[in-house]
Amino acid sequence: MRVNENFGRIEQSYLFSTVARKVSAYKQANPDKRVIRLGIGDVTEPLAPAIIDAMHAAVDEMADKKTFRGYCDDAEGYEFLRAAVAERYESLGAEVGVDEVFISDGAKSDLGNFLDLTASDAVALIPDPVYPAYVDTNLMNGHQVRYVHSTAESGYIAKPDDSIDADLVYICSPNNPTGSVYGADDLAAWVQYALDHQALIIFDSAYETFIRTPGLPHTIYEIDGAERCAVEISSFSKMAGFTGVRCGFTVVPKTLTVAGSADLNQMWRRRQNTKFNGVPYIVQRAAQAALSPLGRTQTRAQVDYYLGNAAVISQGLDEMGIFYTGAKNSPYVWMHCPDNMGSWDFFDRLLEEAQVVGTPGVGFGPAGEGCLRLSAFGQRPDIEEAIARMKAMLA
Amino acid sequence: MRVNENFGRIEQSYLFSTVARKVSAYKQANPDKRVIRLGIGDVTEPLAPAIIDAMHAAVDEMADKKTFRGYCDDAEGYEFLRAAVAERYESLGAEVGVDEVFISDGAKSDLGNFLDLTASDAVALIPDPVYPAYVDTNLMNGHQVRYVHSTAESGYIAKPDDSIDADLVYICSPNNPTGSVYGADDLAAWVQYALDHQALIIFDSAYETFIRTPGLPHTIYEIDGAERCAVEISSFSKMAGFTGVRCGFTVVPKTLTVAGSADLNQMWRRRQNTKFNGVPYIVQRAAQAALSPLGRTQTRAQVDYYLGNAAVISQGLDEMGIFYTGAKNSPYVWMHCPDNMGSWDFFDRLLEEAQVVGTPGVGFGPAGEGCLRLSAFGQRPDIEEAIARMKAMLA
Repeated sequence: MRVNENFGRIEQSYLFSTVARKVSAYKQANPDKRVIRLGIGDVTEPLAPAIIDAMHAAVDEMADKKTFRGYCDDAEGYEFLRAAVAERYESLGAEVGVDEVFISDGAKSDLGNFLDLTASDAVALIPDPVYPAYVDTNLMNGHQVRYVHSTAESGYIAKPDDSIDADLVYICSPNNPTGSVYGADDLAAWVQYALDHQALIIFDSAYETFIRTPGLPHTIYEIDGAERCAVEISSFSKMAGFTGVRCGFTVVPKTLTVAGSADLNQMWRRRQNTKFNGVPYIVQRAAQAALSPLGRTQTRAQVDYYLGNAAVISQGLDEMGIFYTGAKNSPYVWMHCPDNMGSWDFFDRLLEEAQVVGTPGVGFGPAGEGCLRLSAFGQRPDIEEAIARMKAMLA
Repeated sequence: MRVNENFGRIEQSYLFSTVARKVSAYKQANPDKRVIRLGIGDVTEPLAPAIIDAMHAAVDEMADKKTFRGYCDDAEGYEFLRAAVAERYESLGAEVGVDEVFISDGAKSDLGNFLDLTASDAVALIPDPVYPAYVDTNLMNGHQVRYVHSTAESGYIAKPDDSIDADLVYICSPNNPTGSVYGADDLAAWVQYALDHQALIIFDSAYETFIRTPGLPHTIYEIDGAERCAVEISSFSKMAGFTGVRCGFTVVPKTLTVAGSADLNQMWRRRQNTKFNGVPYIVQRAAQAALSPLGRTQTRAQVDYYLGNAAVISQGLDEMGIFYTGAKNSPYVWMHCPDNMGSWDFFDRLLEEAQVVGTPGVGFGPAGEGCLRLSAFGQRPDIEEAIARMKAMLA
């Protein structure tokens, strides 16, 4: 069997696996030390009661012949959930049709699988630093990857580069890893770029519910023209604590024009119905509950809790005089390493001297060198302890 | 954005969607008629009590901060479930390592996604008639598709064709759509072909638990040499009624030799960890329960019930003097249409005159013309009624 040689283009070890391995080795060598992990962006609060109730009810339906559910008719999900997602967009002031919503098992799957729809020699334009999966999935597919570097001066908001003729553009806001949020003008510039270059924007809004500053866009579809050039990929993972429940959604407008005469909505429908069989019924009911008024109240309180953690981190960094972005409308804090240390050097020092785990910024791309990402998921006392240890270490 | 032009190679409408549309149109025009669906292969029995209990317990774990689970460390699934799958193979007399098992959201996803590992001009050798997703996924990927036609004379067991130099070979046993089960000699011939041609066998064992005749292989790994040339893709869908729960597994041996120096186990691990984030914790606990002694007893009783349905169909066809395969170790009955009718003609007649829905054999490939697939899922009284109506129609 001849294999896909493009797998040789990606680093053999995934960033988070490397971090996990280092932490594991440290813990094995130092079993008495308590390590606090602010590395991976995983939620820690249990599922909200409204969601738990919906899941128990759905499990009971599966136990009864009269209410049992087998295959969902469409891989894109039950209408009750697609309609709930469309209503959520309406509440954000954006118009999205029920048949433009595709339910998935998570943003990561859709981000990777959507590339099935692209030409094998497509050019992807990716801001640096960036969530590594954007890059790896494109490399695996044989695509050319071009970067736009974002910097501290611009608050890590990437700007379009008209000298690059891309097929795909990736924007994540609130951003992973930098925590930056793109303003309406920032997004409008990218929409203009996409329309000018017939490029498709893949907009990752997984952290949307962390936005609390009025006036910041919650969806790309708040921007005029985005309905012609953007798909939006999102997730219940951070919105409702679904990292272990697995549910997301992707919006593929029927009004897209940047793929010429190709109907991407139809192509994605075909891809999903051929290579996917939908999300568990129980999970779709859980997601519906997360979008219900009670579910939204309960999950908003959880996001508030994480934002409170982020405020603890940002206050600590302020006191240490360390530059950072994020924290405000995001679970991530993107800090510059003190004393001009490199990302991995500071990661190692923080692990060994303070038993605190961050994620090395350079793992998100060359422009991330000298930075570290801290995640505000976790328990308040741990966050406070981590900041206290970091202060002591740097004193 | 330049699109993947290979999507133009696939039929715009998926077989089962076409059937669904025809049935829906008939029901709209004839609201008083009761249609019995023996078309799609979807289970109808509710989840077994052991599975329901495990799911409720897992939901409760997700409600408590102390037992809540976020991301699974590895996209390939929790070790408790991979170990349970490995033990199941051991009970079948096959040796499979825990790190050779990858948990997925269903066989359909893995069948499609595994092609990410193959060269873009790979040649797939596919028996005809066949589950359409094998063909469509290969066409979408730009692969060349070659067929080996199976016939009534051979009991719809496909034989290798040494004149074709394939990268991939698909074998499904018990077969969808024909219900045929490959014997050890049949499989050994394919293993020999694969080793001779450096081809990878993709063995689909989704219907394995329907095998009741002693001596028939339950897994490709009962065949010597298969550990060097075969991956096995399976599912809890038919084994435990998981079509709406979504869980499957794929075995990728570390001992494979047919991809040259490429390590397919490592490549698949990388693919899954980059484009997938694992199966819901609750679903993995459900699958573990399905493999427990109590779960196996309860789900075996469900499979027995479906096999009883299949016996009703086969007895009816015997009485009508109609040739068929399957029914014995399979939920499918593959019948020749009476009076040399074409598949769609007989489908239409059966729908309009008897209000019974089958799946047209020609939808599974040219060699399926003149055949119809009946599924034994469903309730016994419906199956009996469907057979009585067919008898009356053909009398």
